[in-house]
Amino acid sequence: MARAQLPHERAGTAQKVTLVMVAHRAGVSPQTVSNAINSPNLLRPDTLQRVRRAIDALGYRPHRAAQSLRTRSSKLIGYAIKPVPPDTSNPVMDGFLHALSQTADDSGHRILLFAAPDGPTELDAYQELLDTYSVDGFVLSGTTHGDPRQPWLAKRSVPFAAFGRMWSGRQVGDWVDVDGAAGTAAAVEHLVTQGHKKIAFLGWPRGSGAGDDRATGWKRAMQRHGLPVRGRHAETFDDVELSRVAAGPLLDAGATAVVAASDTLAVGCYRALADRGLTPGEDVVVTGFDDTPAARLLTPPLTSVTQPLGAAGRECVRLLLARIADPDREPERLLLAPELVVRASSTAWTRA
Amino acid sequence: MARAQLPHERAGTAQKVTLVMVAHRAGVSPQTVSNAINSPNLLRPDTLQRVRRAIDALGYRPHRAAQSLRTRSSKLIGYAIKPVPPDTSNPVMDGFLHALSQTADDSGHRILLFAAPDGPTELDAYQELLDTYSVDGFVLSGTTHGDPRQPWLAKRSVPFAAFGRMWSGRQVGDWVDVDGAAGTAAAVEHLVTQGHKKIAFLGWPRGSGAGDDRATGWKRAMQRHGLPVRGRHAETFDDVELSRVAAGPLLDAGATAVVAASDTLAVGCYRALADRGLTPGEDVVVTGFDDTPAARLLTPPLTSVTQPLGAAGRECVRLLLARIADPDREPERLLLAPELVVRASSTAWTRA
Repeated sequence: MARAQLPHERAGTAQKVTLVMVAHRAGVSPQTVSNAINSPNLLRPDTLQRVRRAIDALGYRPHRAAQSLRTRSSKLIGYAIKPVPPDTSNPVMDGFLHALSQTADDSGHRILLFAAPDGPTELDAYQELLDTYSVDGFVLSGTTHGDPRQPWLAKRSVPFAAFGRMWSGRQVGDWVDVDGAAGTAAAVEHLVTQGHKKIAFLGWPRGSGAGDDRATGWKRAMQRHGLPVRGRHAETFDDVELSRVAAGPLLDAGATAVVAASDTLAVGCYRALADRGLTPGEDVVVTGFDDTPAARLLTPPLTSVTQPLGAAGRECVRLLLARIADPDREPERLLLAPELVVRASSTAWTRA
Repeated sequence: MARAQLPHERAGTAQKVTLVMVAHRAGVSPQTVSNAINSPNLLRPDTLQRVRRAIDALGYRPHRAAQSLRTRSSKLIGYAIKPVPPDTSNPVMDGFLHALSQTADDSGHRILLFAAPDGPTELDAYQELLDTYSVDGFVLSGTTHGDPRQPWLAKRSVPFAAFGRMWSGRQVGDWVDVDGAAGTAAAVEHLVTQGHKKIAFLGWPRGSGAGDDRATGWKRAMQRHGLPVRGRHAETFDDVELSRVAAGPLLDAGATAVVAASDTLAVGCYRALADRGLTPGEDVVVTGFDDTPAARLLTPPLTSVTQPLGAAGRECVRLLLARIADPDREPERLLLAPELVVRASSTAWTRA
């Protein structure tokens, strides 16, 4: 590439600063400036520093679209936002999305949001982002049993990191997840410490990854303490009124504590207690999961398991960038520990 | 531009389909194909149709980065995601963000998420998105009194649409907002119909746009019915325990109904009632605002005002694209009507 001999005096004017001007000021070739921006590891440290000083001094900003064509890196990360079912919301993802965006920004990347449909056309949306925006990779969330996205992306060597483990099939790619079993186990430990032995579990129907994981944590912790699990397990869908019905037999069988797989299920348990003239937190203690904004607003305020969503968002970006930098690195899979937030629903109990 | 004479037989192979191949198949110049993609209004309808058929037949996909350089349109819309304060969440924005993303997708645009800091460096983040990604425009949310973003963008002729009106200063640009005053007025109407006259308002300290708007709706509706507002208004920050204290004097002054500016404030009122041995929904009725997921989980379930967030997201994209298409069009400003969701907290009352 020919080296242009622009006088550097022009650089300070309102004229658009170009890569060639930076090269001139740093006394290097334009290709070296390009490398400093796109492949800094190719340069000697002192050269890199000289170019960076010139970039700073001139206020040069590479245009991302042009840069993308040169380097085949768009610095864009695709993230599919799922439809919100009409009667619910997912406040849990709020903190995740902010951490994702912030961490991506810190490394010079941006999150490209797209509305992927559920169902057979879901992967078309991923394909389209690759084709039209050349995203560098994807962050996935809401992974399910038989999720088609991980094998599809892996087959095409598209870098990705998932928030949510692979619940079935051959493990491919990197993921970070929250250790749901550790969360319900922590709830059991907290209750055992207070003298509870009849600790029931109110969960979702078998077959959902996260639901089964939470049930397992309760069961293992019970067994660790030699406490019986028979007749202490009920399951239903994530709905207050269904939960109110499902909790009944657990209470009638004499449970003094109920570990619920969600805050919604915990509220159903509150209502089943009220139906029986019992006071949640005093006659029978209850814990929830996810620490939704509702937890602190309930009467009594609900003990719940909070997920480290900020950390999950940051780790997803870290794993993805590491994968982009080295496609052959060993897959990394992280389980983050959740935390039990103790409130009045599990502390006011007096041993019967 | 020279017209390449590629044999169209090659188009069906695995080889990458190019603009030149499309031009050949359609029997037009490559410039015409480019116009069909980037400025379809420049073409005669029959020519446009011929090119589109060739694009479909060959499965041609223009590369967005290359296209951006040619047309100076990136088809990207910037949206700043704000930090989530540690002890809160904003479940309200979930549905908005999905609608935004879906509507943008439908028109061939994508949302570029960025984490704009609050404070003096906020506008730098907007500048950077313009410089490095050439975003076509921005959607703003969380507009505040003295918000610097609208005048900054308007001065630079950058298209934007805001979810949230301009609360102060000279009105610039397009916005869509929810008519908060109509929401609290609807709550008052609902309560008056049931025979309430002593209807208090529990709001936020004066000075927040949304808070003052909600207070105004209550006040005007009360005056319309000739009901006194003196001594029936209290304000505090959005916190359950502060609200519990602030609600006290309203209850002690004999209010039979409390219209709260948020679900959190409504819960504080529930607690103040419990402190006095009174039952929310039976002795004194309560309404909230925002219809957060907590509303249906409370005992009693809370009547609340729900915001049409899907519509707000769709309208923001519509306004932004209209502005991009015609920078000189008259500004459009929309107030969407919220809806009162009636639950047990405001229906079980028996006139004292």
